[in-house]
Formats: sequence, structure tokens, C-alpha cells
Amino acid sequence: MNTHRLSSTDADFDARLDALTAWSEERDSEVTERVHAIIQDVRRRGDAALVEYTNRFDRRQATDMAELVIDADALQAALARIPAAHREALEIAAERVRSYHRRQLTESWQYRDEDGTLLGQQVTALDRAGLYVPGGKAAYPSSVLMNAIPAQVAGVGEVVMVSPSPDGELNDTVLAAAAIAGVSRVLSIGGAQAVAALAYGTETVPAVDKIVGPGNIYVAEAKRQVFGKVGIDMIAGPSEIVVVCDGHSDPDWIAMDLFSQAEHDEEAQAILLCPDAAFIDAVQASMARLVTTLERETIIRTSMADRGALILTRDLNEAIEVVNRLAPEHLELSMADAEQWAKKVRHAGAIFLGRHTPEALGDYCAGPNHVLPTSATARFSSPLGVYDFQKRSSLIGCSPAGASRLAAVASPLARSEGLTAHARSAEYRLIES
Amino acid sequence: MNTHRLSSTDADFDARLDALTAWSEERDSEVTERVHAIIQDVRRRGDAALVEYTNRFDRRQATDMAELVIDADALQAALARIPAAHREALEIAAERVRSYHRRQLTESWQYRDEDGTLLGQQVTALDRAGLYVPGGKAAYPSSVLMNAIPAQVAGVGEVVMVSPSPDGELNDTVLAAAAIAGVSRVLSIGGAQAVAALAYGTETVPAVDKIVGPGNIYVAEAKRQVFGKVGIDMIAGPSEIVVVCDGHSDPDWIAMDLFSQAEHDEEAQAILLCPDAAFIDAVQASMARLVTTLERETIIRTSMADRGALILTRDLNEAIEVVNRLAPEHLELSMADAEQWAKKVRHAGAIFLGRHTPEALGDYCAGPNHVLPTSATARFSSPLGVYDFQKRSSLIGCSPAGASRLAAVASPLARSEGLTAHARSAEYRLIES
Repeated sequence: MNTHRLSSTDADFDARLDALTAWSEERDSEVTERVHAIIQDVRRRGDAALVEYTNRFDRRQATDMAELVIDADALQAALARIPAAHREALEIAAERVRSYHRRQLTESWQYRDEDGTLLGQQVTALDRAGLYVPGGKAAYPSSVLMNAIPAQVAGVGEVVMVSPSPDGELNDTVLAAAAIAGVSRVLSIGGAQAVAALAYGTETVPAVDKIVGPGNIYVAEAKRQVFGKVGIDMIAGPSEIVVVCDGHSDPDWIAMDLFSQAEHDEEAQAILLCPDAAFIDAVQASMARLVTTLERETIIRTSMADRGALILTRDLNEAIEVVNRLAPEHLELSMADAEQWAKKVRHAGAIFLGRHTPEALGDYCAGPNHVLPTSATARFSSPLGVYDFQKRSSLIGCSPAGASRLAAVASPLARSEGLTAHARSAEYRLIES
Repeated sequence: MNTHRLSSTDADFDARLDALTAWSEERDSEVTERVHAIIQDVRRRGDAALVEYTNRFDRRQATDMAELVIDADALQAALARIPAAHREALEIAAERVRSYHRRQLTESWQYRDEDGTLLGQQVTALDRAGLYVPGGKAAYPSSVLMNAIPAQVAGVGEVVMVSPSPDGELNDTVLAAAAIAGVSRVLSIGGAQAVAALAYGTETVPAVDKIVGPGNIYVAEAKRQVFGKVGIDMIAGPSEIVVVCDGHSDPDWIAMDLFSQAEHDEEAQAILLCPDAAFIDAVQASMARLVTTLERETIIRTSMADRGALILTRDLNEAIEVVNRLAPEHLELSMADAEQWAKKVRHAGAIFLGRHTPEALGDYCAGPNHVLPTSATARFSSPLGVYDFQKRSSLIGCSPAGASRLAAVASPLARSEGLTAHARSAEYRLIES
């Protein structure tokens, strides 16, 4: 099976690894302009523009936004229609996701200093959040749970979910997941027009405070353009996994774990790091044998050939160094003492520990979020979480004595900056002693 | 003194308030293109481009980036040169800021579920952070402390501070603050070119993972454009304060508190909300008398006339409703029971409680950060904090029994999504019972 084979001792290893993992964050100026025009139009014309763009891009025939609203009854009906086994699996997954995310809740705190001055941090939830859930062939019910549950746990006042339905096709399992996650209605819109509607509001769509969730290039560009008017989460690139293996796992398991990433789409990236050349050969043999048994064989072959790699490292320490350089979205540590090795990982979206923890379990139901930082953004960002739906206000409450002491510090600093009103405002609070 | 007078009972109150507080987040396409060109040029030509732009925009005559580096010795020399009172004030401020921010540290956590499966969140610091500190007439030593200390407390590996020196003018107090904050060197560069250098790296400037700190429109646009390659904090608009007063504070104090915001620049915004018309008259009289005594009288007169307002509300409850609508950067609650009233505030960057807590104390030394969300972005964002320099990785470590149980949930969900490799990867971990 065709994929890249690299060794960390290759003279051109760094350059080849860089080339293989490069993902251009460059934007296409045509996309930028088209998205800008769509946003302006939705701001100006509201629902009318939103219906027009939806009809055009999703091949719908709506005459009115009301036809694009999927209400609570429709969501419950979908929940009743899906197979009982799917419903039960979604409910177990939702409960595990909820239980994990509850631990992410940030609480307000305050304390008093020796002067009796109160200092603290007041934590509040967003009033309204917009969730973008991709539609069409990338419609994943698990994504509904992963986006909606953290917002709910945070205590967001209102959750507005949008998800396009190309050709009017609705995915019952997606709607059922919305019902289980407690979403009260879904708007069947997508693309830049949905992001514009969430950011600025229309007659039907309430303006939200933050928009989260992955989407295609138009959605990503629209999020970038509305950033500032609303908050956004990280802009997602193609999904990736790095598997580190000590050579003692079943090669079939490792091959299938790599494929579970590669099957997402042609641009997905699956990389194995291992210090055992014979094991790498065994994995490659497993891949060749197993790929023919999979529905998405063509996609897997393309992504493994274009962006996949089996990399021989000097040892496991070096493998972890490469991990920290790549800052992967998903990291599987299929090795002994995975918990100890994880402590050396500085950058990764999610870390899957040990031979019994394939990424697929995390994608659906382990508990942690599956919306993760891609394209090395784990260097500075985190999985989607409850913290994305909470924000903080500083609290400062000076006692008269505390104010006087602080004024004595602030006044000379303010005067050194030429800010006399700041100094005078502080000096009013000085107490003559 | 000229400023807007509004009453919440005015028929056109909502429209007037919206107009007064409107701040266009629209970008100028010429700025967008100029910034894009600068970024591309710095990416391509590195230090050479950086020196050229710095010479042009800051009116410097550097021949080499080395001339634009202010090293640790120069920072220490500045610290030795400033007046002892300033040094002491900076040191007290730094210690209070450090003490407050330590309480923001997020710790890693983990737990095991009933199957022995480990779930958790591993918290790590950024490897490298870039701090943008404005230069020239807006060079504030306090901003150095407020940017650098949270990064340090978070445990960031390397902090790279940039601050432009128009006409080569260096502010000793700014350099001294950098020394006190433990910054090891300052690069005397600014504008879009400095943001580009921090995002992509040059021969002299190491590429960072996140860029924080306020700047002018070119800096803001550059941050927006490099977002994704690196993390950024919120994009700052003009500074604002809303003061809520019950009518029982000294009107001179309130007038000066409003002025301490208005003196920042012509676009700064200072608003008073009060249910007592006679008190509002008294504040306006104080303003007329006090403004003539201030160095920045002209700036204050302009910002109060253009963007300031004294607003009569029906009662204090309505005043807090207006606060939640405005989501102000700074909120002063100059009233009895301020702590109780603060609990009704859903959106504000920092809340100053009681008559003895003017914003100026928070700007310099109370402890909480003075880099705060402006232009109503407190609806979804927080003060700059230690959390801006930390990120999280999810931890999942399945026991064999736990993996088997989760695989039974994941498998049907994966098959319902048509992801066979996901299902097969999970099914390998099923244990026949």
C-alpha cells in the first residue's frame, strides 16, 4: 500500500516532514470577496437574502425562512424514528460527554487582601451561542452532542444550531442527537450565509455572541470575517492523527487506527511514529490487506498516499519530540507506560493512552470533546469545552484604607504617563494620615 | 461642559444609545491590502523587510536588526535611571498583579470511571508568546506589567516583547517595567511588520505561538490576518467606562472618574448612568469646573462631546439592564451594596465596586489585568489572563473492560455515519463475554 516512508536519520528528514505536514493557511482572495459580499447582503436584507443563498447553494426551493426551521416536534419525531440501538448509543454517549464536561466548569472566586480590599473573578455564561454543524455527507450526530453539550453545561441562555440540508436531505440521526442534546430548534441553513445570520441576526435568526463548530472553507472564512462582532472558536483544517507505537501492539489494530483517520476525507492525515522497522513493515502489510475490506477504500488510499506516513525514529523519546513539533489534533500512544509518556507531550488536542484506546472511542463516546485544534494549533489552543461558553469579569472592591494605599502607588505612575485625570481620580481616595 | 444628556424615558432612547455607542468593526479594504503586503514581505525577506518598514514608519535609521534590539543590560540601566518612587510603585504594582494572576492558574486533572478508564485534562503553557506593547505617546509601563506577568505566571517558555520607538524615542519607565516583569529583551519594532515577524519568525525574531496586546488599526488588522497561524487575543477598540451611581457619591469624584477614561484619546467613551437628575446636574457642574484644571483638557472635551453621555434611568435596576446591553470594558458601581449589585451584571470586562474604587486603581496596581474586552466583546470574552497562555489536552486511557464497553457504543454510531474503519478500529477492542 502506497504511503510515505521516512526515517528520522534521513538527511532531508526535517524538510520532508515539513512538506508532508504543511497546510496552507493562505486564503483565496476570491473566497474572501465572495464571503464578504454574502455577509453584507445578509446584514442588509436579512431573511430574504438567507433564503436566496440557501436555495442557490443547497439546491432548496424555500419561499420563506419558516420552511427552513426544524422545530422541537420534528426533532422528537426523528428521535422516535431512529433504531433503538442508535438511540441508546446516543444517550449513553451524551451522558458520558455531559459527565466529563461538568468537570470543566469554572467557578467564580474572590478574596480580600490585608486592607480588606476585595479582589476576584466573576464567571458568567454567554447569553446566546451559535453552533455550526456540517450537513450533507459530513453530517455527524456525534458533532451535535460535542457542540451542544458544553454550551448547555456552561449554562448558555440560548443555543441556536444551524446545519445545512443540501437537496433538502435531512439526517434523522443528526436531528435525534439535537433532541437528546436539548437543542430546541435547528435552522436548516449553512455556509457563509448561516454564519452571517448568526453574527448579525435576521428577522428569524437571533444574533448570537459566539459561533463554534467546524465547516468548509466558506464557513471558515466567514467566521474569520465576523470575528470581533462575535467570538469564534479555532478555524479548523483537515483532521489528523499521530500514532506512537513501541512495536508491541497488534499491527492490524494500528493499521485500522490510522485508517479511521484517513477515511474522513482525502486531505486527512495519518502518521505512525515507531522505533521498530520490522513493526512498521508489519503495519504496512496489515494496511495492504485490510484496506480492500473497507467501504471508503478509495478515500483511504488517496489520503495515505498523499499525506500519510510511516516514520522510523531512533527511539521513543525522539518520537515524542516529533509529536511536540507536529502538535497533532489526535495523538495515540499505543505503548507501555502511556500515562508516563503523556507527561512529556506539550502539544496535542487529545491524547489516547495505551493499546486499548483508539481515537474512534473518543470520537463518539469516551467523554472528552471531539472538536479539537488542527494544523498544529494545539500549540496555543484547546479542545472545544465549557470554557468556550463562559467568560470572566474582574472584581475590584477597595476598602477606604486599601484605596488610599493603592492611590499612593497609582498616582506617581499615572503622572509619569502624563495621565493627570487618572492621578487626580486616584488622589481623591487618599486618606491623610 | 458639552456632552450628551439622555433619559431612558426618551422616545428615541434606544436609537440614541445605539448611535452613541456604535463602533464600526468594518475594516478599510486599503488597510487590509497594505497589511497583507507587509506580512508577505516580512515572510519573504525577514529582517531586511522588518528594518526597512521600521525605518519608514517609525522614522528610524537602523542598518540592521541588531540596532533594534534592547538587551537585558539596557533594560537594567533604564531601571537604575528612573526615580526611586517610580521604581517602588512599579515593584508594588508588579507584586500585586502577580499575586492576583497566580489564582488564575488552571491545573491538570484526571479521574477514573467505574471501568477504570482514565479521563482528564492536561494543562500546559505556551512555548513562546509575543507581547505587543504600544509605543510613542501611548507607551504605558503598566501595560508591560499587565501583558508580561500573566505569561510568566502561566509558565510560558519564552516571552518576546515588541514595542515601537517612533523617532528612536525610548521610554525609560517602559524599559524599567520590562526589567521588573522579567522580560529578557525588547525588540524596538511595531505595526503590522512586528506582528508578521512574531507570527512567522525572521532571522532575529523567533516565531511565537500567540500574540497578545493592543495596538493601532494596522496592528489589529495584522493580528486578524495571522490568526490561525498563531493565536491572538481580542482585537481592541477604543477604551470605555460606564459609571453607575446612586446619587450619593461626591460629584467631583464621579466627574474625575469619567475624565480618567475620556483623557485616553478622542475616541474614548465615558458614560454615567444614574436615577437622580439633580445629581447628574451636579456632576455636569463638577465637570465644567474641573476640566479646565487638567493637562489633557482638549482631548477630554472632544471625547465627552462626541462620545460621552450622562444618562438618567428610572432606577438602579434599569441602569444595570443598560450595563448588560452595553457590556462595557470598565464598569464602576459607585453605590451602596455594590457587591450585591455586581451579581446582576452579566457582561463587563472589570467591575469596580463602591465609591472608593475608581478605575485608575485597577489600571495600575489593584491586581487584576487592565487589558480588557472593549466594544461590547465582554459578551463573549474575558480580561487578558493566565488562561490566555495555557492550553489543554484531553486525556483518555481506556482499561480493556472500559474499551470494550465504549466500543459497543461507538461501533453502531460509526456504522450509522458510514465510517467503517472507525467501527472496525473500535470493534478490535471488544472483549467477547
